[in-house]
Amino acid sequence: METAHGSFMTPVFMPVGTQATVKALSPEELEDAGARIILANTYHLYLRPGHGVVEKLGGLHRFMHWDRPILTDSGGFQVYSLSGLRKITEKGVAFQSHIDGSSHFIGPEEAIRIQKSLGSDIIMAFDECVSYPADYKYVLDSVRLTSLWASRCLGEKRGETQALFGIVQGGMYSDLREMSAKALVEMGFDGYALGGLSVGEDADTRQRIIKETTAFLPEDKPVYLMGVGKPEDILEAVILGVDMFDCVMPTRNARNGTLFTSTGRLVIKNAQYIDDERPVDEGCDCYTCSHFSRAYLRHLYMANELLVYRLNSIHNIHYYTRFMDDIRKAIRDERLEEFRDNFYKRREAGNQIVE
Amino acid sequence: METAHGSFMTPVFMPVGTQATVKALSPEELEDAGARIILANTYHLYLRPGHGVVEKLGGLHRFMHWDRPILTDSGGFQVYSLSGLRKITEKGVAFQSHIDGSSHFIGPEEAIRIQKSLGSDIIMAFDECVSYPADYKYVLDSVRLTSLWASRCLGEKRGETQALFGIVQGGMYSDLREMSAKALVEMGFDGYALGGLSVGEDADTRQRIIKETTAFLPEDKPVYLMGVGKPEDILEAVILGVDMFDCVMPTRNARNGTLFTSTGRLVIKNAQYIDDERPVDEGCDCYTCSHFSRAYLRHLYMANELLVYRLNSIHNIHYYTRFMDDIRKAIRDERLEEFRDNFYKRREAGNQIVE
Repeated sequence: METAHGSFMTPVFMPVGTQATVKALSPEELEDAGARIILANTYHLYLRPGHGVVEKLGGLHRFMHWDRPILTDSGGFQVYSLSGLRKITEKGVAFQSHIDGSSHFIGPEEAIRIQKSLGSDIIMAFDECVSYPADYKYVLDSVRLTSLWASRCLGEKRGETQALFGIVQGGMYSDLREMSAKALVEMGFDGYALGGLSVGEDADTRQRIIKETTAFLPEDKPVYLMGVGKPEDILEAVILGVDMFDCVMPTRNARNGTLFTSTGRLVIKNAQYIDDERPVDEGCDCYTCSHFSRAYLRHLYMANELLVYRLNSIHNIHYYTRFMDDIRKAIRDERLEEFRDNFYKRREAGNQIVE
Repeated sequence: METAHGSFMTPVFMPVGTQATVKALSPEELEDAGARIILANTYHLYLRPGHGVVEKLGGLHRFMHWDRPILTDSGGFQVYSLSGLRKITEKGVAFQSHIDGSSHFIGPEEAIRIQKSLGSDIIMAFDECVSYPADYKYVLDSVRLTSLWASRCLGEKRGETQALFGIVQGGMYSDLREMSAKALVEMGFDGYALGGLSVGEDADTRQRIIKETTAFLPEDKPVYLMGVGKPEDILEAVILGVDMFDCVMPTRNARNGTLFTSTGRLVIKNAQYIDDERPVDEGCDCYTCSHFSRAYLRHLYMANELLVYRLNSIHNIHYYTRFMDDIRKAIRDERLEEFRDNFYKRREAGNQIVE
């Protein structure tokens, strides 16, 4: 995909930089770890420091010293999951800040205007995220509202180089997903996201919804599965045609001391690593694995030293970006099924599987 | 000064890497910020991860991926300031770990053996740190004990390339400082430290003690003022002939959001910086000032983002190392007094002075 800040190949994983920083990492480290595009959050940046501040400072890229592409989420999901006292009308959503309880309003027009100020390369339409489970009637009304908002997002003036993605909703109801997808495709977006997944449904249901929904999306536009996920979930979704992913898992797990390796996950605080001279993953060439032992990382973790959050995050982001590189290569070589089989076999053979 | 891990010029400031990491910084960032030698703590590393682990992993340099010189404190100060239930005998000190309350013993022989395992370039003799104020009789006995321990430290086998510094004690009593200094010089160390200062005494008293004590120390050996301090304290001590310094101030202040600048200190959380496009210090060429605005740093700080601890620490360490560079240059140019006058004038002219 081409953007004003360079291009990236898909399928791609986007590290999450909620508050204009991918937690614990510098922009240079993100680049070195292979990140080609990152995600930031409209809701968070609107509340703090304020999109006006970011705009005055030259936009999000300059503000955070990151010159590769940025996708901003519209704030729809965060308004539902983080803020208090929501009141939804056709106009938009009134809510209270999770930081100081102050009152705010964001509707489709506001969401586009905020993202215009931020200057991100890919912006998202404002949607309603329904909770799970939700009854059919509620989800039906919600899909209609999301479609209405989507068309108003398209009508609002955005930055000249900003791509706008629509977000398919519809809960776990196949016909509502179809209705939502068809409505958005009819309007014509630069890409299509699957929202409202990874909200508590089982993996089979998620796979079914992804498969059913992508069938109604155009093949020549990127498909983005929001908030997913584990490496195995990403792999399965790629097989179903998904192109873009974001998830806090690599960075959050890093801060909790859980590291991704080719043979499963490694919990660095475990006593067995106290004097283990090996890197986290012997086949990994990230900065962390190139210079530091499991013993040192465990020491830093047990001593609550800030450096460990960074070193672990570098490794986990590198794991994810290399995983996507490998998937792309397998697609090019037309051996994605073989790649999938090997992925699961390596894990079974490993002795560090946590779940 | 020459060491097995390269040389450094004095006067020098040593960033503090208590637990085998200078908080929030990678070794490369420390180098880029101008650090030539760092300090680590025997007490902390003995307790966690254990000096045996560090030795097995190839020594402190390899463990933490830092190949410039390291000085380790002997643990004397930490045993008094951090641990519980201390019992002091001629043999050494029995104490309880501040981490888990377990019982331990370190005397002069143990302190040298631990530092031999760590493989640091400069090691410190084990001393008794008296509290302040302390009565004359107590300090007299303590100086005698510290001298006895110092001679036993000299007698214990250390690493072939390890330099050993003695620590002058004596509280705020001029004659006891003289007694301590003369006893150590008589024994012959590779360098001499001034311990037991910056413990609550006023600045005039400290200056007096430094001046009186350095008079009894050989001019051709480095003099190290432990735990000091503010830039102005360092400058005044250099004028009195001190060569080496360490202090947590640049890194601790960084984590508290206080930044050193040529015109005084800047408190990044202040509302005035919310949309301030300028770098922390317009004359500074550190990584932080080269890429990030005050507005971004303030945003990260208000949002509790990990990256700010690093960016602030890089700037403050760079400030200190450049400050020492400037002092060395002023000494070479024989204009240290002029440098001192300008230093205070710039501060008075600045409008960001906090104290």
